[in-house]
Amino acid sequence: MDYVYGPGKNHLFVPGPVNIPDQVIRAMNRNNEDYRSPAIPALTKNLLEDVKKIFKTTTGTPFLFPTTGTGAWESALTNTLSPGDRIVSFLIGQFSLLWIDQQQRLNFNVDVVESEWGRGADLDVLESKIASDRSHSIKAICIVHNETATGVTNNMAKVRQILDEYRHPALFLVDGVSSICALDFRMDEWGVDVALTGSQKALSLPTGIGIVCASPKALEAAKSSRSVRVFFDWADYLKYYKLGTCWPYTPSIHLLYGLRAALDLIFEEGLENVLERHKRLGKATRLAVEAWGLKNCTQKEEWYSDTVTAILVPPHIDSAEVVRRGWKRYNLSLGLGLNKVAGKAFRIGHLGHLNELQLLGCLAGVEMILRDVGYPVELGSGVAAASAYLRNVTPMIPSRI
Amino acid sequence: MDYVYGPGKNHLFVPGPVNIPDQVIRAMNRNNEDYRSPAIPALTKNLLEDVKKIFKTTTGTPFLFPTTGTGAWESALTNTLSPGDRIVSFLIGQFSLLWIDQQQRLNFNVDVVESEWGRGADLDVLESKIASDRSHSIKAICIVHNETATGVTNNMAKVRQILDEYRHPALFLVDGVSSICALDFRMDEWGVDVALTGSQKALSLPTGIGIVCASPKALEAAKSSRSVRVFFDWADYLKYYKLGTCWPYTPSIHLLYGLRAALDLIFEEGLENVLERHKRLGKATRLAVEAWGLKNCTQKEEWYSDTVTAILVPPHIDSAEVVRRGWKRYNLSLGLGLNKVAGKAFRIGHLGHLNELQLLGCLAGVEMILRDVGYPVELGSGVAAASAYLRNVTPMIPSRI
Amino acid sequence: MDYVYGPGKNHLFVPGPVNIPDQVIRAMNRNNEDYRSPAIPALTKNLLEDVKKIFKTTTGTPFLFPTTGTGAWESALTNTLSPGDRIVSFLIGQFSLLWIDQQQRLNFNVDVVESEWGRGADLDVLESKIASDRSHSIKAICIVHNETATGVTNNMAKVRQILDEYRHPALFLVDGVSSICALDFRMDEWGVDVALTGSQKALSLPTGIGIVCASPKALEAAKSSRSVRVFFDWADYLKYYKLGTCWPYTPSIHLLYGLRAALDLIFEEGLENVLERHKRLGKATRLAVEAWGLKNCTQKEEWYSDTVTAILVPPHIDSAEVVRRGWKRYNLSLGLGLNKVAGKAFRIGHLGHLNELQLLGCLAGVEMILRDVGYPVELGSGVAAASAYLRNVTPMIPSRI
Amino acid sequence: MDYVYGPGKNHLFVPGPVNIPDQVIRAMNRNNEDYRSPAIPALTKNLLEDVKKIFKTTTGTPFLFPTTGTGAWESALTNTLSPGDRIVSFLIGQFSLLWIDQQQRLNFNVDVVESEWGRGADLDVLESKIASDRSHSIKAICIVHNETATGVTNNMAKVRQILDEYRHPALFLVDGVSSICALDFRMDEWGVDVALTGSQKALSLPTGIGIVCASPKALEAAKSSRSVRVFFDWADYLKYYKLGTCWPYTPSIHLLYGLRAALDLIFEEGLENVLERHKRLGKATRLAVEAWGLKNCTQKEEWYSDTVTAILVPPHIDSAEVVRRGWKRYNLSLGLGLNKVAGKAFRIGHLGHLNELQLLGCLAGVEMILRDVGYPVELGSGVAAASAYLRNVTPMIPSRI
Repeated sequence: MDYVYGPGKNHLFVPGPVNIPDQVIRAMNRNNEDYRSPAIPALTKNLLEDVKKIFKTTTGTPFLFPTTGTGAWESALTNTLSPGDRIVSFLIGQFSLLWIDQQQRLNFNVDVVESEWGRGADLDVLESKIASDRSHSIKAICIVHNETATGVTNNMAKVRQILDEYRHPALFLVDGVSSICALDFRMDEWGVDVALTGSQKALSLPTGIGIVCASPKALEAAKSSRSVRVFFDWADYLKYYKLGTCWPYTPSIHLLYGLRAALDLIFEEGLENVLERHKRLGKATRLAVEAWGLKNCTQKEEWYSDTVTAILVPPHIDSAEVVRRGWKRYNLSLGLGLNKVAGKAFRIGHLGHLNELQLLGCLAGVEMILRDVGYPVELGSGVAAASAYLRNVTPMIPSRI
Repeated sequence: MDYVYGPGKNHLFVPGPVNIPDQVIRAMNRNNEDYRSPAIPALTKNLLEDVKKIFKTTTGTPFLFPTTGTGAWESALTNTLSPGDRIVSFLIGQFSLLWIDQQQRLNFNVDVVESEWGRGADLDVLESKIASDRSHSIKAICIVHNETATGVTNNMAKVRQILDEYRHPALFLVDGVSSICALDFRMDEWGVDVALTGSQKALSLPTGIGIVCASPKALEAAKSSRSVRVFFDWADYLKYYKLGTCWPYTPSIHLLYGLRAALDLIFEEGLENVLERHKRLGKATRLAVEAWGLKNCTQKEEWYSDTVTAILVPPHIDSAEVVRRGWKRYNLSLGLGLNKVAGKAFRIGHLGHLNELQLLGCLAGVEMILRDVGYPVELGSGVAAASAYLRNVTPMIPSRI
Repeated sequence: MDYVYGPGKNHLFVPGPVNIPDQVIRAMNRNNEDYRSPAIPALTKNLLEDVKKIFKTTTGTPFLFPTTGTGAWESALTNTLSPGDRIVSFLIGQFSLLWIDQQQRLNFNVDVVESEWGRGADLDVLESKIASDRSHSIKAICIVHNETATGVTNNMAKVRQILDEYRHPALFLVDGVSSICALDFRMDEWGVDVALTGSQKALSLPTGIGIVCASPKALEAAKSSRSVRVFFDWADYLKYYKLGTCWPYTPSIHLLYGLRAALDLIFEEGLENVLERHKRLGKATRLAVEAWGLKNCTQKEEWYSDTVTAILVPPHIDSAEVVRRGWKRYNLSLGLGLNKVAGKAFRIGHLGHLNELQLLGCLAGVEMILRDVGYPVELGSGVAAASAYLRNVTPMIPSRI
Repeated sequence: MDYVYGPGKNHLFVPGPVNIPDQVIRAMNRNNEDYRSPAIPALTKNLLEDVKKIFKTTTGTPFLFPTTGTGAWESALTNTLSPGDRIVSFLIGQFSLLWIDQQQRLNFNVDVVESEWGRGADLDVLESKIASDRSHSIKAICIVHNETATGVTNNMAKVRQILDEYRHPALFLVDGVSSICALDFRMDEWGVDVALTGSQKALSLPTGIGIVCASPKALEAAKSSRSVRVFFDWADYLKYYKLGTCWPYTPSIHLLYGLRAALDLIFEEGLENVLERHKRLGKATRLAVEAWGLKNCTQKEEWYSDTVTAILVPPHIDSAEVVRRGWKRYNLSLGLGLNKVAGKAFRIGHLGHLNELQLLGCLAGVEMILRDVGYPVELGSGVAAASAYLRNVTPMIPSRI
């Protein structure tokens, strides 16, 4: 069942799927059950309440689609928009590219604002478009909170500020796949209309739930959206929420139990502590990169991502070889550079259920690999820089004091 | 984590999700991993080859969508048909009803052939429609092989025969959700163009994979289909099959490992033996129903289903109460009567990973419940009828002889 | 990893090891951890407190030896007695025989009181021995509460009554392996000095913990016992209890977590309800045996066991063949007849995590097997007798009302 | 169920219990089963054959006692020796001390050869004792191969050489608890008479199997040994081996399946590769200790252990505080200094299922802790020293090339 056995733990540092806590693995270790018994709706209702906390919303309505992030995208778009609708969308890396491709194939009129990969969404362009759109032809702004391919975090508060300044009614749709539950995400405060994430990211579950959260305004828009949809239709869910049975079709029962355990762990740690931990690990990674003398693919500090760091390698090195050697020699899984940065960057995912020593083990591995592929890094230098920082900011584990 | 603890095993006899073999639960008991490493494509390629065996196809192309049966339906339809296309669809129970609802919402021109619930698809009407459709306005026949709500199995060979007789080129789309891997399903022999099932049915996995298998003719049709689709688009899968990485987006890794284990068990038992076992358990159930003096919801023997039996209760009894008492008192999960047969029928699912004594325990439980709700069944009568049959036809377990 | 795969669940009806609840399997599904961290002593202390409840003692001191029931026996004997000590021990079946063998090999002077297999311990003989032992040469009474080989439950209250009547100071050592947590066991009320059980019996865990519980009098006796012992020595445990680290050597961490989960389930169901459930299942089994026209190996009702029923087959039938066929054909595991009753009896274990429909499935299986081996049982007769009783006494599941 | 939750993985670096491979956790994730069915003896026989390979014996007879290392000690001694027998035993640390304590309590005449903690067994003293023992009053040599408390590996070949040189017939009993399957152990070549280990050490299982392997000479000695034993008696096992049912009492079925999976992984990696990996990790650890400017508790290179390193801290530092902070702040489990080296040393266990990056993460953690407790280590220095070595000696993972 394991074609590629290597001794010891696999060091999983792709920016998703991420490490699953043992508690969550245990919770999912079970037989199927009848989802029409009273147990599953009871479980579901609690989950729907609790999942709102990680979006920081009290007014949003969440949907737990048995799908992936790609499906969650489709649900966000087709429920709120109609074919031909003009949307402004930002192309800054592979995942925003894929979302835009989906938007185009769904027949929206996509106004693409492109930035160099490694830069954030160009919000000045957004502002000028919004400012000039007196007729409100722009129906939605679609933006990734965190571009997983380049490690770029966009400024969501700024988007809201622009919309507010010009009193523009465009819907605000956010891909939070590699941000929600790891970066500070404030759905209500930012007036996000649809936010979404996938279970295999910061929630640290297997793939299989696409969580979509809709604002009241988004729910209202859904009533008149003319995009064709059935599987991803919110209306069916809302109908079953009302009936109290919650599910228009069979849910992923295992993932529901897993989500329950995942949320329990997040709340036990404290959501703000989880976010702090991600900041800490992100900063530590960047300090290591700096110590190695390598460049962060992200061009400015304001866009630095606390969930994934894309690292540029010198031109004579193939970044894919870094990833390959990690896997073949050290049982380390790093993220490939994708598309425009293929061969040029590799990525360290530092999101989800992860702690300091896991990261330091990864950094030590990257150092050895860099030497293996001919980059003259000083061994221990990145680990030293990261740990000098970490040892001052890592808190005691509350349950153990 | 368990709101509704009851002592002993839960007796799961809904017609899906069904009991998961321990071997499969074990196989899924694992951490996430990088799906871009060579391991996952290697695993996937083997699965794609092996999964064809349960469809009995060598020419089909399978897709393992991270979705449910409802998503698999949508994938089958949107990849092969265009809005406005005329399709003939058979309404014979709740699941065919839901599929028709989807077909209509996807803007096909659905020619609904309705039968009384408890009867099979009216293939005489099909024949007359096909016969009279000289212009080939009918683009597809959509039919459930096995209607889960009423326990009715339709005659797929007959559908093919009709199409062949009139040399009609309509696509032949089959919902095999509660049949494939339990009933004899012959995709190639029957000339089925798209067949589909869900992981939580006879494959005995958790919910989360919608398996769709397309004939060469269906793949050809997909090239010109104008239905909007992205998540469910075969083209993206085909592109990544060619690239060798297999996945256009993150797969459900756990379910892939689970599917591997599930197929291994099915092949170890022997697919034909698995089908025989389902015949045996179906027949035994029907013998019990007869002994109880109750009516099978399925009106004729030719439609009897070997995966689920819907049982009609006398008018003064509420079938939902049968289900409720099973769950509340005996830790037994039976299937509710749905929609038109709500309150009138309850269902025993006898598909997937199940054996004779499990079924007899269920039958003994149903007998007690029937007495509880006021039906004067003779205790032991159904068990006696079923076991008189089973003891003559149950084979020795090959590995134990 | 599974040499003997058969479809569907294994029906486990040996009188131990018994079915493990899914919740317990989950709790044990984990990595190792450092047993010297504060976590394990904290867990252990709670377990030591809670485990007393299943012995119904407040004054006893429990020990969780990483061993089996055989080891627990050895611990009970070597800590309280010295070589040459006279003990009265009752031979009524295979397990009392094995314990007596151990007692003899440990060099005690064993005064064996033998009964026909199928009868209980002869307490009249005990009384006469106690009555005549004015010099108090008898140092201990050793008795199995429930003889697993014959399904005989001895009267513990009566033993205490005899000792009290004659003010005899003999220690009262009880093998509760197949009774504690299933039959009503009252350590304090009965003045039991050492009681013991194994994790794989009514506690429904894997094998690996021998639980021994010592009265203050037993602890006192341990101070002067001259039997050689190290691994099984209570003194080491008591020393580490005092130190607060609890363990003189590495414990079975997985089983401790499993025990925690097992006790949680028992307390959730309610210990008295657990005992009631065992009474119910025992009675139902005996009603089936009667309906089949077979004889219970246990000769009188006063000795009937609610955890295991040994069933005599007619002389022309080999009871081992009953067991073999169960396993080979129906995935049913029954208990063999042992030693004197080998070939003559087979056993149904009905203890631990088990419910009504599981038992009825087993009984239906036994009926088919009996026919297979040539006994003309009326199919359904035992199930009918059992379910006629069960349906009147099985309570609603509290969490589901 | 987890009193002390901390985010991310626990970094388990105590010298046992050690990390369990996921494959082994999966293999043990199962219900109980009947150990008298043909399946368990079949499994057991394979295990008994295969387990000999890790002892490097073809002539030895293994026993898989459901016990711990302490029980395995007791089994080794009581089966081969009689009360009053003179044995030579070496006191070099906490675990040899505990074994000697057991030997004395079992009433052997123990000739203790003590060394300073941190030094190996004094084999010169052994030689002189053997040389002068013309009457062969010494019945056995008892020695730990690897003293877990101080990280000292004794020279087994030398012991055999001494015995051979003087043609001394003493039995040669070896505690291989923290060596077998990690250090090169050659039972046949060294003429070891009884070797033993515990499942939670290099085999990377939970606690619960004490594996004892006896040479033909030891089996012969067992026939005349007058030590009292029942649970630990080899004779009962040999009897059931002959009968083919293998078990005199209930085995730990879960651990048998776990052992099967553990051995499969070891053989897949290759036993010699496993030993090389331990050498590599041991050396890397020592290089880090040196870089930190700290002293290895082990005084000479010839005794360096490749499974555990005990590290001395400067007098002003409490080594227990190092361990405490690791657990409280970094989710790192290190070994305490025990008894004579309590407060003076802490230990890094580097045995079992472990790889390079796991170790480097641990070393990075130790560096931060050392700074936390006031030792002015240069951060990154140990990691650098270890990784400079590791990157040259770590092989590609065979299955991934």
